[in-house]
Amino acid sequence: MARPTPLSGFPEWRPDGRIVEQHILDTLRRTFELHGFAGIETRAVEPLDQLLRKGETSKEVYVLRRLQEGADDGGADARGDQLGLHFDLTVPFARYVLENAGHLAFPFRRYQIQKVWRGERPQDGRFREFVQADIDVVGAGELPYHYEVELPLVMAEALGELQAIGVPPVRILVNNRKVAEGFYRGLGLSDVDAVLRSIDKLDKVGPDVVVQLLEAEAGATRTQAMACLELAAVSGPDTSVIQRVRDLASAYQVTSELLEVGLVELEALITAAAVRAPGVVVADLKIARGLDYYTGSVYETVLVGHEQLGSICSGGRYDTLASDGTTTYPGVGLSIGVSRLVSRLLNADLVRASRSVPTAVVVAVTTEEGRAESDAIAAALRARGIPAEVAPAAAKFGKQIKFADRRGVPFVWFPATTESTRADGTVVPAQPDQVKDIRSGDQVAADRASWMPPAADLWPTVSAVNP
Amino acid sequence: MARPTPLSGFPEWRPDGRIVEQHILDTLRRTFELHGFAGIETRAVEPLDQLLRKGETSKEVYVLRRLQEGADDGGADARGDQLGLHFDLTVPFARYVLENAGHLAFPFRRYQIQKVWRGERPQDGRFREFVQADIDVVGAGELPYHYEVELPLVMAEALGELQAIGVPPVRILVNNRKVAEGFYRGLGLSDVDAVLRSIDKLDKVGPDVVVQLLEAEAGATRTQAMACLELAAVSGPDTSVIQRVRDLASAYQVTSELLEVGLVELEALITAAAVRAPGVVVADLKIARGLDYYTGSVYETVLVGHEQLGSICSGGRYDTLASDGTTTYPGVGLSIGVSRLVSRLLNADLVRASRSVPTAVVVAVTTEEGRAESDAIAAALRARGIPAEVAPAAAKFGKQIKFADRRGVPFVWFPATTESTRADGTVVPAQPDQVKDIRSGDQVAADRASWMPPAADLWPTVSAVNP
Repeated sequence: MARPTPLSGFPEWRPDGRIVEQHILDTLRRTFELHGFAGIETRAVEPLDQLLRKGETSKEVYVLRRLQEGADDGGADARGDQLGLHFDLTVPFARYVLENAGHLAFPFRRYQIQKVWRGERPQDGRFREFVQADIDVVGAGELPYHYEVELPLVMAEALGELQAIGVPPVRILVNNRKVAEGFYRGLGLSDVDAVLRSIDKLDKVGPDVVVQLLEAEAGATRTQAMACLELAAVSGPDTSVIQRVRDLASAYQVTSELLEVGLVELEALITAAAVRAPGVVVADLKIARGLDYYTGSVYETVLVGHEQLGSICSGGRYDTLASDGTTTYPGVGLSIGVSRLVSRLLNADLVRASRSVPTAVVVAVTTEEGRAESDAIAAALRARGIPAEVAPAAAKFGKQIKFADRRGVPFVWFPATTESTRADGTVVPAQPDQVKDIRSGDQVAADRASWMPPAADLWPTVSAVNP
Repeated sequence: MARPTPLSGFPEWRPDGRIVEQHILDTLRRTFELHGFAGIETRAVEPLDQLLRKGETSKEVYVLRRLQEGADDGGADARGDQLGLHFDLTVPFARYVLENAGHLAFPFRRYQIQKVWRGERPQDGRFREFVQADIDVVGAGELPYHYEVELPLVMAEALGELQAIGVPPVRILVNNRKVAEGFYRGLGLSDVDAVLRSIDKLDKVGPDVVVQLLEAEAGATRTQAMACLELAAVSGPDTSVIQRVRDLASAYQVTSELLEVGLVELEALITAAAVRAPGVVVADLKIARGLDYYTGSVYETVLVGHEQLGSICSGGRYDTLASDGTTTYPGVGLSIGVSRLVSRLLNADLVRASRSVPTAVVVAVTTEEGRAESDAIAAALRARGIPAEVAPAAAKFGKQIKFADRRGVPFVWFPATTESTRADGTVVPAQPDQVKDIRSGDQVAADRASWMPPAADLWPTVSAVNP
């Protein structure tokens, strides 16, 4: 087999990069669990018709086929049900809720950290296989607004925890579909989807093109289009944005109950966020989230200084996350693009692991006959929670130290030796167990039953490259 | 959407089942890391031609196709390279080693915990999508035998740790391909694969059919077939099995250098295992591992009392795990079938989680206006590592307690109240923060800055149903 090359769009990390990713996943999981979210994992596949329900995403789906399908099997797949890989964690979660509704307690809070697949053309930060970390709360029949305040704040906390390892701070941009829809309808624009679709392109194509789009696709007059652009230009970290929207509505003689409901909600979110996550949450009235079926709050998140990377954490409120015909399940949630974040951290060399293996101590082997003794030392260290492995061969100690050094392992342990006599008659005295810090070169006698490495060396640490 | 039904072969767990699975994954990971194995994760897909290299597994592969392939894209996939989902973690690991060889330090120890997919007909304990947890050590050019002793002992330790939560003990059955091959060749049977394939069916079809198979497919005489069966019948926990094989070889006038090398290796493994994992490792000369390309030790593992479930942890030594034409990479490893294990634990109700959510404390809400105070209490608890969530609504306290009870959450926290006066003039005195253990009903004043739940209640625990 010739040396294989990476597949574009299917990122993989080397062992030290995986330590960074794993640290991030562990941090997210801990924050989610501290907030009472239950972890679930769904299968990677869903029936194709369920994946295609929204239509727009059809080109992204990977369809599965068993290689010998049909040839060897007239039974299991005879219905011809096609399966595809899930392209997000929301569709499978909605299905899981319906399937298990009788066994879940609502409102149900869950987190879910899994890979998803999309057959899009790969770009920087856009992959065909990537990890998402989602939190959602779903209610049966109803879901109070306060969850729309809580969930972005949980993400603010989770992403904020990552600053300790050198992840840049985040800015969570929030908007409310009711504000946008109320304003557009109040202006006289009835094709709200078309307006949202046009506004969603603002960052990409600029205001002039958006005005043309609004006229061509949403049937807007120049005045209506300008009003939409003015709304999209409103942003700010405090509740003064609410007054600015009200002023704008007055100026364009827009009156709308929906707009007013949306503004009250948005104000509540900004007010709570100013207390619980100061400086993180910013109202930004241009956030549209394209065609996703959000009905209230919408969220996007940028990494400060890396805004061009796009959103690393997005979501919003659905009035109908799922429905079985009898009960409707509204939900609100956000999804972190973990692979997008990790690829930036690693490729821009922002964050690094202190070593490439868990091992804190390599136990040297004096002779192959004495390997059992080295095994026993390693076992004694592990029993006290110290990651340890035994050297691969009874090579010269210099080579065994190099084995540790290449992996960034900080300590090498030398087993005790008994008194021996060289061929020339020199007596080599007995030595106790010794441990060497190979960074400083310090070597000291050590007791396998009590020695501990410094806490910072026990496990690999992850930190900013230039803190 | 009508209520969906599960897909056969694609297991999913409810939140309390996922806590059991997650606990097992955490335990395995910790053991692997204590032994210095670096975690990696590979993409879910491999080029189809790589997946089909061994031929025998072709019917199991799921092939991927982008739904709009060809229609919208003349570029990225123009080569027509087909991708399939990996059916194990060994093929991707071998590819990862070749792809990253210049950046890895050998011998390279890695663990990998991921889903794999096989389009086989689903059965009890046999799934189309399932989680494997693998450890392997791979060398560049050479890999000393002692790793064939070490790796099953790491698995013995990892699986042994699970007994604390009620997982039955395991028995690791070991054999050595050199023993089998040396014996068969010494007998005059040259089609070793055909013999192994026949012997591999022993448990399924019984000795009489195996004798017929050996005659029909391996060209064995009745005497040769009986000798193979006699070898397969040898098993035992100590090195007496080595002598029994030697006696058998003598009786059939088999002399083979390969057999002798294999017996020395097998003896070393049994001897070390008797010291380091007493009672767990058993030599069993019928273990063949079918057509996998093992060249030395082979391993299978049964759950004691659940032998009919099949092996839950298998593997062996490959002299050529991977090769780039210049360097050959030998390896040895084992793979735990996590989903097979977890499905048995849950379906047979052997192991249970103490609750279905991480939450230790539900903070009650007195009035919706006072929700911010409940949020602040929950934040104070979380800041000290206590998983806490706030009740969904300012309902009657009885209803809020029921919310906690339905999830198995042990504590409900009632925010302090100030003195108030009822309509009838009764003065209700101020109350401090209080916490109720809803199992005992005990309710006491508590300080949000210092109260801790008992350690056993802090996080969900996992334990045997009938310990």
